[in-house]
Amino acid sequence: MENFTYSCPTRWVFGRGTQAQVGELTERFAGKNATVLLHFGGNAIKRIGLYDTTVSALRERGIRFVELSGVVPNPRLELVREGIRLCREHKVSFILAVGGGSVIDSAKAIAAGIDAENGDIWETFVARRPLKTAVPVATVLTIPATGSEMSPNTVITDEASGYKLGYGDEKLRPVFSIVNPELFFTLPPNQIANGVSDMMSHIFERYFSDTPHCEITDGLCESVLKTIIRNAPKLLADPQNYDAWAEIGFAGTIAHNNLLGLGRVQDWACHGMEHEISAVYDVAHGAGLAVVTPAWMKFILPGKSAKLAQFAKNVFGVPVGKNDLETAQAGIAALVAFYKKMALPTTMRELGVPDNSRFEEMAKKAVLGRSRDGNEIPQGNFRKLFSGDILKIYHLAEK
Amino acid sequence: MENFTYSCPTRWVFGRGTQAQVGELTERFAGKNATVLLHFGGNAIKRIGLYDTTVSALRERGIRFVELSGVVPNPRLELVREGIRLCREHKVSFILAVGGGSVIDSAKAIAAGIDAENGDIWETFVARRPLKTAVPVATVLTIPATGSEMSPNTVITDEASGYKLGYGDEKLRPVFSIVNPELFFTLPPNQIANGVSDMMSHIFERYFSDTPHCEITDGLCESVLKTIIRNAPKLLADPQNYDAWAEIGFAGTIAHNNLLGLGRVQDWACHGMEHEISAVYDVAHGAGLAVVTPAWMKFILPGKSAKLAQFAKNVFGVPVGKNDLETAQAGIAALVAFYKKMALPTTMRELGVPDNSRFEEMAKKAVLGRSRDGNEIPQGNFRKLFSGDILKIYHLAEK
Repeated sequence: MENFTYSCPTRWVFGRGTQAQVGELTERFAGKNATVLLHFGGNAIKRIGLYDTTVSALRERGIRFVELSGVVPNPRLELVREGIRLCREHKVSFILAVGGGSVIDSAKAIAAGIDAENGDIWETFVARRPLKTAVPVATVLTIPATGSEMSPNTVITDEASGYKLGYGDEKLRPVFSIVNPELFFTLPPNQIANGVSDMMSHIFERYFSDTPHCEITDGLCESVLKTIIRNAPKLLADPQNYDAWAEIGFAGTIAHNNLLGLGRVQDWACHGMEHEISAVYDVAHGAGLAVVTPAWMKFILPGKSAKLAQFAKNVFGVPVGKNDLETAQAGIAALVAFYKKMALPTTMRELGVPDNSRFEEMAKKAVLGRSRDGNEIPQGNFRKLFSGDILKIYHLAEK
Repeated sequence: MENFTYSCPTRWVFGRGTQAQVGELTERFAGKNATVLLHFGGNAIKRIGLYDTTVSALRERGIRFVELSGVVPNPRLELVREGIRLCREHKVSFILAVGGGSVIDSAKAIAAGIDAENGDIWETFVARRPLKTAVPVATVLTIPATGSEMSPNTVITDEASGYKLGYGDEKLRPVFSIVNPELFFTLPPNQIANGVSDMMSHIFERYFSDTPHCEITDGLCESVLKTIIRNAPKLLADPQNYDAWAEIGFAGTIAHNNLLGLGRVQDWACHGMEHEISAVYDVAHGAGLAVVTPAWMKFILPGKSAKLAQFAKNVFGVPVGKNDLETAQAGIAALVAFYKKMALPTTMRELGVPDNSRFEEMAKKAVLGRSRDGNEIPQGNFRKLFSGDILKIYHLAEK
């Protein structure tokens, strides 16, 4: 186990009806004289009454706020810049993100960009420059998936350059997050499945590690994965199953608050490879991960069969094969079968990538997004991947 | 799953050599002009050089501090009162607890008692009165056991009345805790075993619950218990096994920061019953728990075999018996066998309780410690226990 320092102060307000606390919590964390940015996507929060609940709660308490809607999946730098201008103009001191991971990620990027001392927001992302200050962010979650509600991370797409970059700073961990599984009842099947795939990948990126003596976090990862795998299919059958949503909502949050990754060298190659797919084809992140992850597992398998066999046994309970390789292969097959059960795509074509004409471009971008000198910065740690490796993985993901 | 609100801001500084950060962290969290109370037990921290490290670090940074040593296992109200007087006299604004759970618990009680607005400290404990303010507490941990390094809880013994009471307030969660497994290398076998027993019980008290649909926390509990059970015996064989200590140190902290108990009605009867034994006989808490817990399991078994069978299967991997009762019994036997392997006592006599002459008195105290009207306040939730039940459990623990 490696040394680590960890603190996760986000106040997690979980359960039925908890959105009723949004006014009280905002007042407590933002202060009486704050001006709040209410940030959201579009009609989704209006349809479920959450927009009205939030706006009424803020008005009742006399909390000043300005609104910025229009966040789309794979949230855009352009809207972030608009948010930064708006917040500076109105002297916003608190951001309330009401929505899914894209809304929260957009809110975090705005929060990171308001103080001019931090410099240009995209430069901050590219250079992974630490923040001097950040405006506090709070969330009311409507889609369990990205774990952004308790993470210090955000991912933003710059449409102009075609890059999609992740960024993290502890100042961006939300001060509170309201997670009410009832708010997930109207999600369509594909969003349920994409969210489940995303949270599973947040665990995979931590679980697949060579750091020795991490039994405690290995066990936590395996246990949360098993809970997800048992409960997610119930939601496709009955999207109003509160109990299954509670398991999935809880899992999605702890999948990415980094407790499960403490003391471990983490991987993150699949996220990196997927970001380039969704940057080019604007596919859902979770769907892209379901396509990339098994291909990545097949690619790394020769040198990594022991850990993949552990995964197969402890997460999917597959029978132990003749050797690790065989057990691991059965585990990958079990993962693909699970994705199929969730009606997730498992090939590039099913994902909506029509052909392989842009694979080389995406593979290059995956290793050049942060490069200053044109030298490739490999993705991943469990197995370091250069553009040639990534290209092979994209091709493996074709079938 | 029940609704919950949770926040755990304690900065967890984990790993080799991390005590070197104590000066920097104290300065950051206490502020430059603080007066710090350095609270500890006795020679143990001097023997391992931790006293010198800490004192030098504070002096180097010019941090004013006063010292109060003398904390003993089952920490005493009398020393708490002395600490409160000392802190008021020196206007202490930060408490650094260097030691095991007893030192940290004593520090928390002092922190809770300094502000006269909070009222008398023992009255606060008895009435479970919330704190108006608390002086911040930080810790350098020397024994992984109580989880006090990341919990809001403390347990104090009033020798005058013979009561031992627990208390919790979120303001008592340490602001930082340094957990370096190397500091555990010189612990004697009985302290290793007592600590392991205590952290396991912190999980049992949360795990044994009737709250339905808590698969996620059931899984987390089972996974951490398995890690403890696999690694603890390695420490008896080699107390300088860093890797095993890292697993146990990590486990002990998350066993009691309440992540594993979120959304669940928790039990805590075994802790309550043990507190009365150690209040009377001054035995080690972890040792007492190893005696009480199997007796409690046997007592509740008739109505609770399903959960106990789940425990048997998922934690100890015992073969499934003819029915839940049989599986559960095998699980209790496996737990007793594990305690024996750790050289823990499993009977009252082995614990050092010479006879049953004070069982009735202890059983009464276990349900009257907080009673205002002489009516019994039962212990536990998974199964509510009145003094008659507790008496039976104490007798079951005789053999």
